Amino acid sequence: MSSTFGHAFRIHTYGESHGGAVGVIIDGCPPRIPITQAIIQQALDRRRPGQSEIVTPRKEADTAEILSGIQDDLTLGTPIAISVKNTDQRPGAYDEMALKYRPSHADYTYDAKYGIRALSGGGRASARETIGRVAAAAIALQVLRAHISNIEVLAWVKSIQHLEANVDPATIDATTIESNIVRTGDPAMVEPMIEHIKAIRGQGNSVGGVIECVIRGCPPGLGEPIFDKLEADLAKAMLSIPATKGFEIGSGFAGTLLTGREHNDPFVMDGETVRTTSNRSGGVQGGISNGESIVFRVAFKPTATIMTSQQTVTSDGQNTELQGKGRHDACVLPRAVPIVEAMAILVLTDHLLRQRALTH
Amino acid sequence: MSSTFGHAFRIHTYGESHGGAVGVIIDGCPPRIPITQAIIQQALDRRRPGQSEIVTPRKEADTAEILSGIQDDLTLGTPIAISVKNTDQRPGAYDEMALKYRPSHADYTYDAKYGIRALSGGGRASARETIGRVAAAAIALQVLRAHISNIEVLAWVKSIQHLEANVDPATIDATTIESNIVRTGDPAMVEPMIEHIKAIRGQGNSVGGVIECVIRGCPPGLGEPIFDKLEADLAKAMLSIPATKGFEIGSGFAGTLLTGREHNDPFVMDGETVRTTSNRSGGVQGGISNGESIVFRVAFKPTATIMTSQQTVTSDGQNTELQGKGRHDACVLPRAVPIVEAMAILVLTDHLLRQRALTH
Amino acid sequence: MSSTFGHAFRIHTYGESHGGAVGVIIDGCPPRIPITQAIIQQALDRRRPGQSEIVTPRKEADTAEILSGIQDDLTLGTPIAISVKNTDQRPGAYDEMALKYRPSHADYTYDAKYGIRALSGGGRASARETIGRVAAAAIALQVLRAHISNIEVLAWVKSIQHLEANVDPATIDATTIESNIVRTGDPAMVEPMIEHIKAIRGQGNSVGGVIECVIRGCPPGLGEPIFDKLEADLAKAMLSIPATKGFEIGSGFAGTLLTGREHNDPFVMDGETVRTTSNRSGGVQGGISNGESIVFRVAFKPTATIMTSQQTVTSDGQNTELQGKGRHDACVLPRAVPIVEAMAILVLTDHLLRQRALTH
Amino acid sequence: MSSTFGHAFRIHTYGESHGGAVGVIIDGCPPRIPITQAIIQQALDRRRPGQSEIVTPRKEADTAEILSGIQDDLTLGTPIAISVKNTDQRPGAYDEMALKYRPSHADYTYDAKYGIRALSGGGRASARETIGRVAAAAIALQVLRAHISNIEVLAWVKSIQHLEANVDPATIDATTIESNIVRTGDPAMVEPMIEHIKAIRGQGNSVGGVIECVIRGCPPGLGEPIFDKLEADLAKAMLSIPATKGFEIGSGFAGTLLTGREHNDPFVMDGETVRTTSNRSGGVQGGISNGESIVFRVAFKPTATIMTSQQTVTSDGQNTELQGKGRHDACVLPRAVPIVEAMAILVLTDHLLRQRALTH
Repeated sequence: MSSTFGHAFRIHTYGESHGGAVGVIIDGCPPRIPITQAIIQQALDRRRPGQSEIVTPRKEADTAEILSGIQDDLTLGTPIAISVKNTDQRPGAYDEMALKYRPSHADYTYDAKYGIRALSGGGRASARETIGRVAAAAIALQVLRAHISNIEVLAWVKSIQHLEANVDPATIDATTIESNIVRTGDPAMVEPMIEHIKAIRGQGNSVGGVIECVIRGCPPGLGEPIFDKLEADLAKAMLSIPATKGFEIGSGFAGTLLTGREHNDPFVMDGETVRTTSNRSGGVQGGISNGESIVFRVAFKPTATIMTSQQTVTSDGQNTELQGKGRHDACVLPRAVPIVEAMAILVLTDHLLRQRALTH
Repeated sequence: MSSTFGHAFRIHTYGESHGGAVGVIIDGCPPRIPITQAIIQQALDRRRPGQSEIVTPRKEADTAEILSGIQDDLTLGTPIAISVKNTDQRPGAYDEMALKYRPSHADYTYDAKYGIRALSGGGRASARETIGRVAAAAIALQVLRAHISNIEVLAWVKSIQHLEANVDPATIDATTIESNIVRTGDPAMVEPMIEHIKAIRGQGNSVGGVIECVIRGCPPGLGEPIFDKLEADLAKAMLSIPATKGFEIGSGFAGTLLTGREHNDPFVMDGETVRTTSNRSGGVQGGISNGESIVFRVAFKPTATIMTSQQTVTSDGQNTELQGKGRHDACVLPRAVPIVEAMAILVLTDHLLRQRALTH
Repeated sequence: MSSTFGHAFRIHTYGESHGGAVGVIIDGCPPRIPITQAIIQQALDRRRPGQSEIVTPRKEADTAEILSGIQDDLTLGTPIAISVKNTDQRPGAYDEMALKYRPSHADYTYDAKYGIRALSGGGRASARETIGRVAAAAIALQVLRAHISNIEVLAWVKSIQHLEANVDPATIDATTIESNIVRTGDPAMVEPMIEHIKAIRGQGNSVGGVIECVIRGCPPGLGEPIFDKLEADLAKAMLSIPATKGFEIGSGFAGTLLTGREHNDPFVMDGETVRTTSNRSGGVQGGISNGESIVFRVAFKPTATIMTSQQTVTSDGQNTELQGKGRHDACVLPRAVPIVEAMAILVLTDHLLRQRALTH
Repeated sequence: MSSTFGHAFRIHTYGESHGGAVGVIIDGCPPRIPITQAIIQQALDRRRPGQSEIVTPRKEADTAEILSGIQDDLTLGTPIAISVKNTDQRPGAYDEMALKYRPSHADYTYDAKYGIRALSGGGRASARETIGRVAAAAIALQVLRAHISNIEVLAWVKSIQHLEANVDPATIDATTIESNIVRTGDPAMVEPMIEHIKAIRGQGNSVGGVIECVIRGCPPGLGEPIFDKLEADLAKAMLSIPATKGFEIGSGFAGTLLTGREHNDPFVMDGETVRTTSNRSGGVQGGISNGESIVFRVAFKPTATIMTSQQTVTSDGQNTELQGKGRHDACVLPRAVPIVEAMAILVLTDHLLRQRALTH
């Protein structure tokens, strides 16, 4: 099920970075959900290259073509196929990579697994694969909103290397995040982060950081006990994004420094609603949403592609060196923000539909 | 698929903490794998209550009964059913919980999801559910060893609250870990950790910490690209364990403080074998194992059950207070070590069988 | 997924004919469905051996034990585990079979597949495995009725070898079927069928026949297009029952003798309801129920176990002869009637829950 | 999982008859399998319209475009996406159908299920959907052959209405079947069948029939016990093909007229190989292949589209009449032959890969 995600709301992605197209089939989408090509395109535009001065200058229009499942801007209930052509193919830029394994990329492991590998670009390991996820999530968000009118899924850059933003998940809004090209939620950190990315890029180097995400308005009861806990599916979703190395929800790793007395979230009635006075649980208890905001963080390693010479080996087993080239992001986080949101939306939508099957 | 884990090697668990039994069915286990009841029992004994002075004194023998799928100590290829009776049922100890939601437990969310809830003990949210996982992993480990003779999966307590162990994943061994009741890998931290757990328990309080795990001997090529990345499935597996709040692999969150130049793992030939000179990737690249040790860490929050009065609400919507009682672990980490290992083994075994289907 | 059936309402069965127990886990059952042990037991009693003079005289009480998922006669929403102990183990009766492959049984194919085989009785290929299906369907039927109050699923013996019953699927009722031990729906054929089975048994021979099933009250809209068509899932469900060789729905094979003009079912309004004036479609069109009765037939081959000498081979490759012994059904159809109903109920329940996930 | 088929070798199809494209993603295909666009195209050409004087004269080139997963005529192990554009869109021909439900089509049931429906052509219920299956099977066949060099999957028209072909599954060959446009295996029935189809078409009427299929060279051990029996998966696969109403394997429904003594297949050694002297089992025993030829038959109803006036209702609940028009097959069987083969190939390939995961 390598390229399938979800059980009730399922997506299947396909496509190498330099083949004919990348895309997605969505199966299990409820019928009569309003959706337009423009909504999908808008989502894709947030993740595409070339959108600002701090991301890769590759020029890919990434135009979504809807091939099935939608008629007159309404879903039919049948599989929705969305395809995005690969237009900016420059296989020549990658010739050396066909012979040398790029350090901390997936070249070697693909060869080890399959005994064969797409020789242009990152193949299936390219972040270009996430186009299908983002397109699918644009539709999933409409499904979510049809059932939960006030649902909000917002991600932002929490840190770039040592630069950390100060953001309140309870009040952060999309306008603030989208108002700056680094997509952080802290206006004071916009300039320092942009300058740092530019400086690092100028050195042919790269940086990573942390993206934080909040889901507000999620009703209690989503998520399933045991293996398909909401936090377990979120963790899997996030670790499936290229370049991620960690996930934590609520108090996370820092919560291990507290005692139970400090950590527990007391319950209190808020009118007819059960609430907690703190939210170290991060909106989930026992794998199921409790109605509080779901808050989690994802660690992204520094981009593996750097512009200085590195020690590596050839695919036929010789030690060698490799000098990075091509057009890459010195920091993937600004473009990863919509991908984190997309995966969170897909997890939520899947669990919403699963819960509906159980309700009577 | 809430209670199902795995695709090729699949387990299905069942059982509330205070019903007739808890157990597991394993489907997809290859035939003719040697396994005895004693091997399964030994695995269960590592996670059962009452095994030492720092864990809950509940007396549960947790005896594994094999109901199907094994004949003359060999697997038949058909579903293996293992059942463990619930013998120490004391529903009386929990009467108050039937009415009051325990803070940071799953009482409220189960009610919110299902409109009904097991009224004795934690029901399905009890850590007792993990018995089935540990039993299944004891069998999975035999499958792994049949294919990869030198495979090793070792977990240990990396930290208890602020107390951190110094352990080298490359050299740590099972004997060291099992030689102390806290299951840490650092002899110098055994006494401090034990003393700290006892002190915290004496206060009716609780603590959490971090468990670290290494998989040594994993061949390159396991794990699948895109959604079923090895690290994604490990993340899901770990976040499905009760009380977990975070997962990181390789450099993890700390890796976000490095630049790409510092973070990348250079490749080098070691005879005929491709190796890396550092292992910030944590043994996986692009979702696929690269032959290096797989190293990850899991954050466990402090135990939610504490022995002091806490603010909460009743199931019919009244503010109230709840005083914890019963026999609980002030720190779950020593007993969680075999569970972390079990889930890692299940992920690996599943991916091993999946990879075999692709190989020719 | 060999021992798993269903997607939203899923069952997992386990158990060999002569191991510790056979049983089932049901996952995905909605919460708060009323169910008692007595309802499950009543369903099992309809399929158990020894219930009449024309079925195998084996004495197996087949007592259902509920291990989890049900509290105070209500489902909890968590996995329901039901176990039935194997009490009448007489492995001695089968010694010869451990060495010789019984013709038209699964002894040889299990050996070919697994390289090992349960040496007592039919192992996993025994009809005893269907206990778990019948128990699960007893619960599924309560789920169905909670949503569709007038749903009816009725099967009966349509033919025993050349003896064919005349039954109207529109009016047949459970009382008529259960009033005779052969479970046919035609009172005139009861005695001839019983006499025929007795005569065949007296010869140490066996017979098969056809079971017909009707689902009345199924609303339009259940079933999914393409691969999970309602008729496709019914076909799979029926062919998964031991000894089945064919499935047909509506006009079936005989419908191939009609022209389109004769075969098509004209639509007509019946008040506000769309109906068809004939039902050669058998209640499904394009894989989806159309509100008419769903009618299908299942072919059962004659029981493979016969009491005369047969040509066969030993498991080490020698030609030999085998004389059947033990206590077997000369005709499985009377006991297969509740199994056909059970599988139909499981298919319907799964599709009901799947449809609910899509509805808004 | 409506549009997904298979577990280890999985296909996902998409596309309405009159949208942008129809297609398929194949996930789980082993790497380094040789495949060319020409092989896929050749398979599609066998099912496309306009190929002979007895099938629909629609002109659809049905050109397969490979979008991912194949490089230099070798599979990469990653998802293979194949797309076929819908070129001959004539929505005008179907205007009346947007308002009136065609008898024995899926118009009404799609509306009942989804509350919306593709208004041009059959939408997802169109046989055009099978393009993806046939394309995927062309690749699956290469996988099969890579493991089982002598595998053969051959289907032919066994009967058209009352006209029955006399064909020996042991000796029939592809050349004989492909030498005639009706794709029967009996040279003597070619002309009568062709004439009958033409005569029926001349009356604006339609006919159905039976397709028989043999799998030769299948090794023993494929298929799984219980629910995923080889015959159960074949039954599901066949009943998922549009217009099918029945499936039988081996002796099928006729086998119910035999006694056990007549029906059982005696085992005999053939050198080192276990064989049976008859094959009423149809090549499967207990759900697992036994090394004999797998033989099954599929019933196809007469084409629902006929050119005479029929009684029906409008989508807003009025009684009316509908006169068929458009370009349709008066008999779908010649074009269904490659679809039956395709589904058989997909089932076999899935079970081959599943078996490989279990083997050591």
